[in-house]
Amino acid sequence: MKLKDLGERRVIQIIRRRLDGRGRGDVRLGIGDDTAVVRGPKNLLLTKDLLVEDYDFRPALCPPRLLGRKALNVNLSDIAAMGGRPLHALLGLALPVETDAKWLLAFLDGFRGAARAAGVSLVGGDISEARKIMISVTVTGEAETFVRRSGARAGDLVFVSGTLGDAAAGLRIIEKAGRPGKDRIAGPLLRKFLDPAPRLELGALLARRKLAAAMIDVSDGLSVDLAHICEESGAGAEIDLARVPLSAALRRFAEDPLPLALDGGEDFELLFTVRPRNAARVRKLAGRFKLTEIGRITAGKRIMAVDAAGRKRPLKIRGYEHFR
Amino acid sequence: MKLKDLGERRVIQIIRRRLDGRGRGDVRLGIGDDTAVVRGPKNLLLTKDLLVEDYDFRPALCPPRLLGRKALNVNLSDIAAMGGRPLHALLGLALPVETDAKWLLAFLDGFRGAARAAGVSLVGGDISEARKIMISVTVTGEAETFVRRSGARAGDLVFVSGTLGDAAAGLRIIEKAGRPGKDRIAGPLLRKFLDPAPRLELGALLARRKLAAAMIDVSDGLSVDLAHICEESGAGAEIDLARVPLSAALRRFAEDPLPLALDGGEDFELLFTVRPRNAARVRKLAGRFKLTEIGRITAGKRIMAVDAAGRKRPLKIRGYEHFR
Repeated sequence: MKLKDLGERRVIQIIRRRLDGRGRGDVRLGIGDDTAVVRGPKNLLLTKDLLVEDYDFRPALCPPRLLGRKALNVNLSDIAAMGGRPLHALLGLALPVETDAKWLLAFLDGFRGAARAAGVSLVGGDISEARKIMISVTVTGEAETFVRRSGARAGDLVFVSGTLGDAAAGLRIIEKAGRPGKDRIAGPLLRKFLDPAPRLELGALLARRKLAAAMIDVSDGLSVDLAHICEESGAGAEIDLARVPLSAALRRFAEDPLPLALDGGEDFELLFTVRPRNAARVRKLAGRFKLTEIGRITAGKRIMAVDAAGRKRPLKIRGYEHFR
Repeated sequence: MKLKDLGERRVIQIIRRRLDGRGRGDVRLGIGDDTAVVRGPKNLLLTKDLLVEDYDFRPALCPPRLLGRKALNVNLSDIAAMGGRPLHALLGLALPVETDAKWLLAFLDGFRGAARAAGVSLVGGDISEARKIMISVTVTGEAETFVRRSGARAGDLVFVSGTLGDAAAGLRIIEKAGRPGKDRIAGPLLRKFLDPAPRLELGALLARRKLAAAMIDVSDGLSVDLAHICEESGAGAEIDLARVPLSAALRRFAEDPLPLALDGGEDFELLFTVRPRNAARVRKLAGRFKLTEIGRITAGKRIMAVDAAGRKRPLKIRGYEHFR
């Protein structure tokens, strides 16, 4: 059954039945009126991400259930990077009329799973036709204390969660194979690309305990996102290349994994800076949240890479950008 | 200069410089971090609309400045229909790499004008590449008292603002001409289609004075949007066809203007119901807000059209729908 056989009203009914999030006590009005109405928190976080077919994903290479998860989770990653708690979502879906209803159901199923896991209620959105799939998700959140990109200061230590470069490797594997593979090396790399996890618990904890001075999620690549922090903070940085966290799978996949870790996008890990006085408290969290100390913030504006022998060279800033 | 010559960072800089809305005192953090941070109102309204090239607009027939206005104003119309006051906007733009920077600047110019007129701050968004233009706008608002679609009750009177069918006629004129025309008949019809005005003042006033029992904006067409109110309220309605407000321009344009007024979309007028005890107070507002009383809410679920001779027949519900 295709969307054109269902019609718009039926499609909205399906979304409403599967996803309408009256789960949260603060939702006064969900899907089905002119706007949603929710109770506004003191500090309201607002974020929006677009996913465009052929540019941000390829349907043939991306199972719809995972795409539904990812469409929400990339937004939750932005909330995590502020140290916030996600609350509500709006879902905008532009779909070809030939889209199979099964695709939509699987997409919604994935979206719902990710929403439930994070305690997020879908409260509204819009649908339209398009020749190519376009997904626009808006997420609200709240944060008693929030962490900006601009809070870094010379002397801060730079930490990152998880490992870097895996998603970029996963993308290459998929694009080469023309389909999601299943072999043992590729498994974790593919998973990181197709099903990234927002670091909500870590972000909220760092904000609540005031441990992160500046924070961003690594979506464009470590080099670009570190540059964002430095630019907004008016500071420089030094990164110890030998400390950049690489997974065993990435080391097996690439002879030279470092460029993928430095410039590959879509890691959705948290990159944050820590005042020296807080370093010991953050190091205590390292095991639980897989944190690695990879460098330090410096005076001036230069971002340098330090190799194992202690030699410094400017870090090339070349993550993914649109319109290039 | 095309977007591919500018690159993503520069495009974001341009948007930030033109639109970043620190104008509002409640914006704690605008464009440029992982999320925006604003002060949340007690009742937070959330709405999102998609505009997709070739389905919701044609760039060749829609000047970018007006498209920028419309992209925001259709969302503001939803806020108006809740009786709310708009606060913040997020702008998602998926654009072809060949888009001329002039197009973007004109679009942003229009968006900014509409935002300023309504006291709305742009606080964030996302951009991406796409083969076709896709615009996704999210707007927040607040309302001490908000008006749902579901509040209608048998005996209520049905009012609508402005005139209906003009925008649908404007669309036909444009599609036939292949370009926006300028002749005297077409002028107001085209304007209504290309540059609709959200009825924010009216909506907020009706909500504040508790004069509207149920309200919706006429975006899909009178018949469909009246059906929404009836369905959500568990009621029926009778519409006096002779009272449906038609502009002089529409009467000149169409030999039989009524179908355009009943089933044409994108009027963005407010359709609302009023308890009999409040009717006199609403009638006093009729001159100022161009209100017309067009019928009444009835028990049961049937929606009937009453002609000039008093004959009743079921009103056909056939407004615009996607996926058909």
